[in-house]
Order: sequence, then structure tokens, then C-alpha cells
Amino acid sequence: MNILVAGGAGFIGCHVVNHYLSSGSTVCVLDNLCRGKESYVSSLQNQENLYFVNADLNDVQKTVKIIGDFHSKFHVDIVWHLAANSDIPAGISDASVDLRDTFMTTYAILQSMKIHNIKRIAFASSSAIYGDHGAQGVLSESTGPLFPISNYGAMKLASEALISAAVESYLEKAWIFRFPNVVGIPATHGVIVDFIRKLRSNPAVLHVLGNGTQQKSYLHVSELLKAMLTIVEKSCNSLNCYNIGPCDDGVSVKSIAEDVVFRVSPSAKIHYGVENKGWVGDVPQFKYCVNHLKQLGFAPKLTSREAVMRAIDEIACQEGL
Amino acid sequence: MNILVAGGAGFIGCHVVNHYLSSGSTVCVLDNLCRGKESYVSSLQNQENLYFVNADLNDVQKTVKIIGDFHSKFHVDIVWHLAANSDIPAGISDASVDLRDTFMTTYAILQSMKIHNIKRIAFASSSAIYGDHGAQGVLSESTGPLFPISNYGAMKLASEALISAAVESYLEKAWIFRFPNVVGIPATHGVIVDFIRKLRSNPAVLHVLGNGTQQKSYLHVSELLKAMLTIVEKSCNSLNCYNIGPCDDGVSVKSIAEDVVFRVSPSAKIHYGVENKGWVGDVPQFKYCVNHLKQLGFAPKLTSREAVMRAIDEIACQEGL
Repeated sequence: MNILVAGGAGFIGCHVVNHYLSSGSTVCVLDNLCRGKESYVSSLQNQENLYFVNADLNDVQKTVKIIGDFHSKFHVDIVWHLAANSDIPAGISDASVDLRDTFMTTYAILQSMKIHNIKRIAFASSSAIYGDHGAQGVLSESTGPLFPISNYGAMKLASEALISAAVESYLEKAWIFRFPNVVGIPATHGVIVDFIRKLRSNPAVLHVLGNGTQQKSYLHVSELLKAMLTIVEKSCNSLNCYNIGPCDDGVSVKSIAEDVVFRVSPSAKIHYGVENKGWVGDVPQFKYCVNHLKQLGFAPKLTSREAVMRAIDEIACQEGL
Repeated sequence: MNILVAGGAGFIGCHVVNHYLSSGSTVCVLDNLCRGKESYVSSLQNQENLYFVNADLNDVQKTVKIIGDFHSKFHVDIVWHLAANSDIPAGISDASVDLRDTFMTTYAILQSMKIHNIKRIAFASSSAIYGDHGAQGVLSESTGPLFPISNYGAMKLASEALISAAVESYLEKAWIFRFPNVVGIPATHGVIVDFIRKLRSNPAVLHVLGNGTQQKSYLHVSELLKAMLTIVEKSCNSLNCYNIGPCDDGVSVKSIAEDVVFRVSPSAKIHYGVENKGWVGDVPQFKYCVNHLKQLGFAPKLTSREAVMRAIDEIACQEGL
């Protein structure tokens, strides 16, 4: 297979690239290296089948040309679109970040696929599209209304909508994955990295954004990859949308803070904020229904807490601790 | 009150402008006159309170400046955002139309409101955000999933999502109106105008796109205006989203074709297509739940067919028949 991975040098993208290279596919990685690193993919096996293009995919004309160049040499079977701003607070203080990196990348990729007649896309969406349904709300794929509370969530929902319209018009097949919080390495951002870096600079105290009661689903990146590949292999509609997450109600920020402190700096004191959310646009609690994914025969083996604990170990090592 | 109406020279916008001018408000109309006409507002009463700016609102910097100029003279109480591409098939053949006119207008207006500290927006969304839920699906405001099948629907949903995120962050109040098909004058587009113009050029035959079974809700623009004003006056959340439509299951394209022929060219033969939809991205049938609106104390008096028949008369006169 010939695969194009937008955002392929990012935290999750490099796992997708690794999978396809390992299974003998030819892979073209497009990445602007804003958050990703070329070393995440240049260290993988089967380099002879890897093409790397440093490109900003929010530029429609350039994206059409770059994708067309690769497609003319290697007929592209699937585009994996994992390019996005992953820093939600950054996108709230400056909406242009998510407009450019989360939404216009989708627009430019779809325009390229239409022009070059590429028919299949796998897209990384997010639980953020649901907005805040409260602690009691259980989010399934058909939950509505959809009122995201961050520009990141808004631009992921906008991207889903464009893909949905494209399926009606010119795409043959699309897979939309609604990610929970995903942890593991190579970690570029997120709560565990934040906590570990804070403790490295001050081992005596950990300041937590929010009061620690935020509770969300966490999935280890290795299981996310398996889930996505299962969905691509087994789902059979033209538009396939799946929540991906663990089979539990998540883990609290307090629990994560305590586990990080235990691993990295056991004598540190933990100071909590007063708000029930870490920042404007943070969904403080959500419960994820993953029955649709289970019906395909896949259920993650790790609980949210187990995924977090494994990631704490991995990220502590990554950070030299 | 001081009101800014984006798309104020369009079919629906000019009714909003007329209402506010009549009630003594100062109104600034922003319109690129792509589909609207300056004459739609220049003929209204109380011209001394009307400011008209010919502007493309997809340009963020220019929009920020224009809105800032008006706001510095007349503190803006509410922005009404009715600017959009209203030609759904055009947006499907060229996605840049809806990107520019339906979505980027929203983005630029919201950026302007954030920068200038304008707190309230009333937004024209659409039943197209729901996608195709089949003939049996009844669309309420909390219906999901939301997979629009046209770029128009996608960019309206994207606009709603941006507004929703803005309410979390810097807006005080937003009203989202999900329009059905709206009919009346000054008509610029839509099925009735199409049929009447076709019959004017060939009074002997009317060719209908699709097999005539498409069935949708139609609302007369005069009742739409009343519904929107009721919602703005009476709803009390920070984010208020309402379906607006008649209290029935709609009317078929076949019925509209027969009523137009009866009024305009009684001897014409009607030829139908074979598909159950008029074009790619056309939602062939939908049923609209308007209970939420009824709970505010408003229900349209006209049925879908009555609204269509009144509009046929009005548009036939507009077209000189």
C-alpha cells in the first residue's frame, strides 16, 4: 500500500508511519515540524520506503502540488490526516492557530484529494467536538447537540463536517476517529509532560491547573493505533465514525498528579487551583461510550489509569528521569 | 439600539434591517452585494439611521477595521450575521465558495467582536447542518450525529461550532437560528424563483430537478422574522439554538411545481427527473421539530404549503407575471 500521513512526524502520526513502514508500505510524511520532529520518523526501520516533506498543509495550492507529486509516482491508497494544533489553550487565546493548523489542513487535503482523485481518508477527530455534556452525560457517536467549547473542538467538528460532505460528493470511504486523551511517547505535550517538567524544575512542589477533579478517559497510543487499524480494516460504510477510548469512566487529574509525583519526586507537595477546569475551553469531565468500537471486536486492555501509569514511566525516561 | 447586520442587503437580511429601522434603531449593513442588492435596503423608511458598507466579510483584517469604525461611533448592541453563500449546488462544485462566504465571514465577524468587545451575536444557521437523517428522522436541536452532506451545511455547522467556542470564551450571548427553506420576497434564489423563471422562458413545460418527491419544511420570511425576534427577546441562556419552521411535515416539490404552474402557466406540462434529490448534497426529505420554539410562545400561522402559495404570488409579481 502507498500511504500519505499528514502530521506523520507528530506524537501519534509517527506510530501510524511506523506501522505502515513495518508492514512493507511506502509512506509519504507531510509535516511542518511545528510540534512533530523529523527524528521521530527518521529513526524508524525501512527508511527506503519513507518520503518526508516539510510542508505547511494550510496552504491549499502548495498542498495540492505536493500531494499530486507523490500521488503521480505512488498511487495513494489512503490519506491519514493527523495534522493539527494539539495545544488547546493556545487555540483559545488565538483562534488563527486552529483555523490554520486544525481546519485549513483538512480543507487543503480534501481539495487535493478531489483534484487528484484520491478516494480514502482516515481522520483524527476528538472528543472535544462534543463540548461539555456534564459529568452525567455519556458521549456516543450520535450524541447531540454538538457545541464545542474550544476552537480546537470547533475546528475538529468543522473538519468532520467537510469530510462528511466530501463523502456525499467525491470520496469513496472516510474513517473518523474521535480520540480521547492519548498518552505515551514520543510525548510533545499534555498533562503528564507538563507535570514531569514542572517537577524537574522544582522537585518540591507541583502546581496543578484546576482543583484536580477533572476526570477524563485516557488511552495509550499503542492501543489507539490498534483501534484505528481495526476500524479501517473492519468498518464497511462510506462514512465511519468511531469513539476510541478505554472501557472505563476515566481517571482524575488528582490521580494523575499523585502518580507522577510518586514516580518522579515522591516528596513533592501538590498544590491545586480552585476551578473545576484547567483552562477556558477545558471539558472538566466526560464519559465515553465505546460500544460501537467493541462491536468491531476491539476493546483496549489498559484502563485509563493503567495507560497513564505506563505513559508516566515512558515519559519520565524520555525526559531523562 | 445599534445593530450591525452582516448580509443585510440579502433576501432575509433586509427584513431584519427593516424591522430595526422601523423601531428606531441605528443599523449598519455590511454586504458584498454578491446576491443581495443595495436597493433592498435603500428603499426602506428611516434612511437617516442606515449606514451601508459594501464589504467582503471573508477578509479578517478589513472586517475588523470596518466593524471597529462603526462600533466606535455607535456602540453595537447585537451583530446579526446573515451573510452566506445561499447557492448550495455552487458550493458543492467549488468548496471555496462556502469556505469564503459561509465560514470565513463567521470567523472574521467573531474575531472583530472579540477585538472590539462586542458581546452578542444572532446567527442564521440551517437545517443543512443535520445532513440526511432519512424520511423518518425528526430533527430536533439535540439530534445527532451531525454529518452534513453539502459544503454549505458543513460551513454552517463549522460556524455554529466557532460561535459555541466563543460563548465559552468571550461572548455574552449568542442566538443560533436553524432555518428551514425560507420563501418570500425579495427572492434571489430557490425553487420557486427557478420554476417561475423557467416557465417565463418556456411557458409550455417545466423541467423539475429530481422526481418531485423531495419533501421539506417551508416558512414565509415574515414568520421567520417574527420567530427570530421572539427568540432574541425571550431566550435566556448564553447559547440559544432553535429550529425555526412551520408546524407540519413540509410540502413536496411536486406540490410546489403544480402550484407554480397553476399560478403562472396553467397549460404547462411538468417533466420530472428520476432521482429522489435535486442535486448532490440535497437532503431529499426532512421533518423538523419546532417544540423548543413553541415553548417560547411562538408558532407560525402558515403551513408549508400556505407559505409557498403566498410566496408564489409575491415572486410572480416580482418577476412581472
